[in-house]
Amino acid sequence: MLDRSSSIGFILGFALIIGAIVTQGSLSTFMSFSSVLIVVGGVIAATAINYSFAKIKISFDTTLSLMKLSSIDLRTDMELLSMFARRVRRNGILVLDGDLKHLKDEYLKNGLQLAVDGFKEETLESILKDEIQSREKQVELSIMLLNSMANYAPAFGMIGTVVGMVLMLQNISDPESLGAGLSVALITTLYGSILANMFFGPLAGKLEYLSELDRNRKELFRIGIISIVEGVNPRIMEKKMLIYVDPKSRAEYLKHHEELSILKKRDEKFYKLWIEQQDKEWENLKEVLATG
Amino acid sequence: MLDRSSSIGFILGFALIIGAIVTQGSLSTFMSFSSVLIVVGGVIAATAINYSFAKIKISFDTTLSLMKLSSIDLRTDMELLSMFARRVRRNGILVLDGDLKHLKDEYLKNGLQLAVDGFKEETLESILKDEIQSREKQVELSIMLLNSMANYAPAFGMIGTVVGMVLMLQNISDPESLGAGLSVALITTLYGSILANMFFGPLAGKLEYLSELDRNRKELFRIGIISIVEGVNPRIMEKKMLIYVDPKSRAEYLKHHEELSILKKRDEKFYKLWIEQQDKEWENLKEVLATG
Amino acid sequence: MLDRSSSIGFILGFALIIGAIVTQGSLSTFMSFSSVLIVVGGVIAATAINYSFAKIKISFDTTLSLMKLSSIDLRTDMELLSMFARRVRRNGILVLDGDLKHLKDEYLKNGLQLAVDGFKEETLESILKDEIQSREKQVELSIMLLNSMANYAPAFGMIGTVVGMVLMLQNISDPESLGAGLSVALITTLYGSILANMFFGPLAGKLEYLSELDRNRKELFRIGIISIVEGVNPRIMEKKMLIYVDPKSRAEYLKHHEELSILKKRDEKFYKLWIEQQDKEWENLKEVLATG
Amino acid sequence: MLDRSSSIGFILGFALIIGAIVTQGSLSTFMSFSSVLIVVGGVIAATAINYSFAKIKISFDTTLSLMKLSSIDLRTDMELLSMFARRVRRNGILVLDGDLKHLKDEYLKNGLQLAVDGFKEETLESILKDEIQSREKQVELSIMLLNSMANYAPAFGMIGTVVGMVLMLQNISDPESLGAGLSVALITTLYGSILANMFFGPLAGKLEYLSELDRNRKELFRIGIISIVEGVNPRIMEKKMLIYVDPKSRAEYLKHHEELSILKKRDEKFYKLWIEQQDKEWENLKEVLATG
Amino acid sequence: MLDRSSSIGFILGFALIIGAIVTQGSLSTFMSFSSVLIVVGGVIAATAINYSFAKIKISFDTTLSLMKLSSIDLRTDMELLSMFARRVRRNGILVLDGDLKHLKDEYLKNGLQLAVDGFKEETLESILKDEIQSREKQVELSIMLLNSMANYAPAFGMIGTVVGMVLMLQNISDPESLGAGLSVALITTLYGSILANMFFGPLAGKLEYLSELDRNRKELFRIGIISIVEGVNPRIMEKKMLIYVDPKSRAEYLKHHEELSILKKRDEKFYKLWIEQQDKEWENLKEVLATG
Repeated sequence: MLDRSSSIGFILGFALIIGAIVTQGSLSTFMSFSSVLIVVGGVIAATAINYSFAKIKISFDTTLSLMKLSSIDLRTDMELLSMFARRVRRNGILVLDGDLKHLKDEYLKNGLQLAVDGFKEETLESILKDEIQSREKQVELSIMLLNSMANYAPAFGMIGTVVGMVLMLQNISDPESLGAGLSVALITTLYGSILANMFFGPLAGKLEYLSELDRNRKELFRIGIISIVEGVNPRIMEKKMLIYVDPKSRAEYLKHHEELSILKKRDEKFYKLWIEQQDKEWENLKEVLATG
Repeated sequence: MLDRSSSIGFILGFALIIGAIVTQGSLSTFMSFSSVLIVVGGVIAATAINYSFAKIKISFDTTLSLMKLSSIDLRTDMELLSMFARRVRRNGILVLDGDLKHLKDEYLKNGLQLAVDGFKEETLESILKDEIQSREKQVELSIMLLNSMANYAPAFGMIGTVVGMVLMLQNISDPESLGAGLSVALITTLYGSILANMFFGPLAGKLEYLSELDRNRKELFRIGIISIVEGVNPRIMEKKMLIYVDPKSRAEYLKHHEELSILKKRDEKFYKLWIEQQDKEWENLKEVLATG
Repeated sequence: MLDRSSSIGFILGFALIIGAIVTQGSLSTFMSFSSVLIVVGGVIAATAINYSFAKIKISFDTTLSLMKLSSIDLRTDMELLSMFARRVRRNGILVLDGDLKHLKDEYLKNGLQLAVDGFKEETLESILKDEIQSREKQVELSIMLLNSMANYAPAFGMIGTVVGMVLMLQNISDPESLGAGLSVALITTLYGSILANMFFGPLAGKLEYLSELDRNRKELFRIGIISIVEGVNPRIMEKKMLIYVDPKSRAEYLKHHEELSILKKRDEKFYKLWIEQQDKEWENLKEVLATG
Repeated sequence: MLDRSSSIGFILGFALIIGAIVTQGSLSTFMSFSSVLIVVGGVIAATAINYSFAKIKISFDTTLSLMKLSSIDLRTDMELLSMFARRVRRNGILVLDGDLKHLKDEYLKNGLQLAVDGFKEETLESILKDEIQSREKQVELSIMLLNSMANYAPAFGMIGTVVGMVLMLQNISDPESLGAGLSVALITTLYGSILANMFFGPLAGKLEYLSELDRNRKELFRIGIISIVEGVNPRIMEKKMLIYVDPKSRAEYLKHHEELSILKKRDEKFYKLWIEQQDKEWENLKEVLATG
Repeated sequence: MLDRSSSIGFILGFALIIGAIVTQGSLSTFMSFSSVLIVVGGVIAATAINYSFAKIKISFDTTLSLMKLSSIDLRTDMELLSMFARRVRRNGILVLDGDLKHLKDEYLKNGLQLAVDGFKEETLESILKDEIQSREKQVELSIMLLNSMANYAPAFGMIGTVVGMVLMLQNISDPESLGAGLSVALITTLYGSILANMFFGPLAGKLEYLSELDRNRKELFRIGIISIVEGVNPRIMEKKMLIYVDPKSRAEYLKHHEELSILKKRDEKFYKLWIEQQDKEWENLKEVLATG
């Protein structure tokens, strides 16, 4: 579900901590179900008070769904929409009806469906904007929630440790059990730190980046759908969409397209390709369409 | 008084901490009236200096009254105001006089009462705006106050612990009492942390979210009341009110209303329903009005 | 000098801390003149470097003078200025000459004096604005200075504790004195925390609120004075002044004044009242003027 | 080099800390050349990486040069420039040539020199603005750098303490040396705290205030120089300069100047005074010119 | 690869810490491969989750490439572009074709190449702007990433120490090994602090400064290239470029150029110089061109 870097990061981080433990002692010393309960449970309880259980669920769903985005190239999306625009100019909007089932992105699919269904332009635009805004609110909520969790985790780690220390200090007569007691008490602090610095903190950071990519992609789709409905010249539509592409890719895209002129043939080739296999990297796509 | 998520969160959090204590020792070790006094009393003292006792009371009242809001659906409110608007256009403003006693929300009730009493539009609008602003100030105060409390709680926890440690270290000769003394000293730290991370912090966070919902609802009421007085076309009034609805509900509302046309009959049905039982979820309402 | 809430807060806070000490040990353990010196002296030294001794004095004067404001009702001030305005419209500006000695607020007194002395309107307005700005700068300075002190206090508490610990650890051979030494060392930490969380922090917070009230009051006076000099219609003058009244009081004021019409008689009654006893709450004032 | 308040603050702070040490033990316990090296050296090293050695030097020069400003009264500067303006209107710009050598402020001296040298107005204004901006950048850099140092100081204090503790814990067999070792280890923490809270932090705070005064003074000079070159009416020039004077002094200045009228004689007296002794407080100056 | 100040800073910082260790004990006590693994590895793992491995690489490349900039004088770049502009006005754009291979800066080289290749002005400007923006995004990413690393480093230092303490407290029976265990546990804390305060923190700070210089330089190049293509008057081009020069250098540049008039001969001399040896400081350049 996670992207490659995050997965490797998690595995690497845990391997290092577990390795450090195993080389010096026994891993079982660090396994404590009651410590997990007090830290994880405490974080969930505080977060449920701060937000609500429903919002915790929404945030985790949003986080997981955004994680899939990290390998998206917006230029492939632009090529697709440009092709659709030219198809519609030649054959009318209904030509898209059969294509919709091939689309993977829900936002684009729903938007084009509304366009095919003949919704008024004004209503269509307002719905498309609302969906972007609604998604943005969910993502903002998710970032805030993960950051709250990153703050609550060490706090409940400390609460667990203080509870353990109070209990341990009651029977100070036995120095042996005193050491063991402190040792156990510190485990919640460890759990809290790891949760904050390996999960909640980094995930909140990653979400912030992915949210920008997600919004840009949806804005690009919105521009594309509206332009198709309005029958805007594909060249102008492309210009509008390029605003949402990151500057480096934009420059490359511009240079590449200055040299192309006979678009019709390229479109047919691209259409065939797309029906077969959708998620091509733009770099490959460019090449295949040029040489194929 | 609290909403469901917050209540479950509180119960869960305390169950976990108490469970962790009971499985390892005795709960009575953690009960200390003097520790409660120094932490809770200290927090209240510092907050009273920072704000005032009167403001602590206002903040807690505001917090409790906002908590009830969490299950509100603004679309039900919109339907109600649209129906009122159409009733007034047919029968004049005085038709509302009998309806006011059925209204639960104080803001809406007072606003419509002023409208029925024939207040000048300008004065009416200014009073409606002032009440929203006044509420907003109270909510902002409450959030600031809860955040201050979340900062003072661990500080007084630490003050209590330092007092305990100074006393304990005076009679260091007896190591037995030394452990017990430190144990007691740490309890204020625990109280401070729990207060900050289970009460004040999460409640301040929840308030921030609820305050937005509360303000949006009052703005929607304000638009509705003014539109009714001015006799604005219900369609235009609806458009203005939709600005304050969250984007996801707005999109659904728009789609649903595009298919409705004979509003008169629907209104009558809705009016009957409303007199009987007010707090319907919009989803149920939509269905009942369509099929009933 | 302080307002009631702050005074009770201070007393409550100290009673709790002293109570906790007395029930467990001797208060004299916590009295250490050298600890007071290092914490309070250190805070003053650092603040003098950061700002200057002169500014520390200005800040404390400003803080004390603002504390008196907390029970002010701006509507009483508005009534007073409206009455003055009507008096001046009937009898000319010089009629105020005898009234000035009854005024308590320096800003209003000086401003009206300049008006009576026949200063040019432009110069008068510029001086009135400068005085507001000058006060605002002082208050901002005071808030910053108190916040700095709230930061320096725990820092010098820690410096004192580290000094104590270094000294104590030199003669570790005697465990008895070791405990006592650490006990003494911790007292500066306690002092630092109490100063930060019971004095400087809460006072800085209170000042922020009072400063807004103070500025609003002076702005209201400024509008009033200029309107009197310009001979503006009292109704319009009232509208301009209402901007600086908090929204809740504004709504009440508006409702009340819609029902009044014969102002002349009310004015005479109010003038008599005011000469005798100035600081009436608006609620009482309203009643007395209506029924008397 | 420092102003009076800062000097007294430094002396007071150190006297208190040294006093606390001497009354309880020996000062030599706290003298450790290697601790100075690790804290001061570490702070300089980190700051050199963060900025550069050249910038550390610039920052300290800027800080010292700004410290001299704290007793400046901008109204004396205004009087001087007004007098210059009137002299130039009577006798032409070259009359200033002989006066320049009496000027202490470099910015004003250079600016007037360029004016006397007949630089184009446009170039002159651009150079004067650039010099202000350049100074501002230096001051901002100094504040940032001092704040960075205030952050690095406790960090290197802690690094030194951890190094000391690791070494000490290696030979735990001898409890005597253990105490002494911890004692020494803590000294770097003490140095770090004192550097942060007595030097870098307060100086950064002071600089922020002085920088505003410095910029206002230079802006006032710039307005003055340009007005002299343009032959603007001295009254209008004064008005423009007053924008940069703090509001309290501005109000006093305005009141005082409303009563003066025969400026020529006052100017001659002032010119004589200024040649003899430049740094008069405005309060004295006002008196002398009025009564002399 | 690093600039001089940073290199000396690193060497100084490490020399001090190693010196402090060596004079008191053995350096080998502080060498722990497993501690390096847990701190450095943990930081990399958390950063990879937060960003990605690819972005860690980009950030380090960007950081290293910016480090070379610290001795750049933008006035030398201005002189070069002015000379190019005059050459092109005399001989046409193709005259630059042979010069491009002498250029070291990639951005300027590519930009002029596009100009020589005859790209449309509009496309050229858009590409030049995109490249600046793209670089800026990379630098912002690098600063954020280094700051994240500066936060993660002490966190993983603490995690390592807690792991060590839990293990050590398990066999509390042997006090000898207890001391040694704590000693080892503290080493990760030391590593974390040093990484944060000697590497990541200061480098993030340095990058922020260098990024401004880098952007200003590229903006200056952009203005220069576009002006050359448009055939703008070199005087006006200079004025536009001066906006990106720091104010102090700008003032000096303006003063110097007021005295020059016969530019043609100076250009020839400069051109010869430049072909031979490019990186002259502006101060030397000015002198050589004037006297040579």
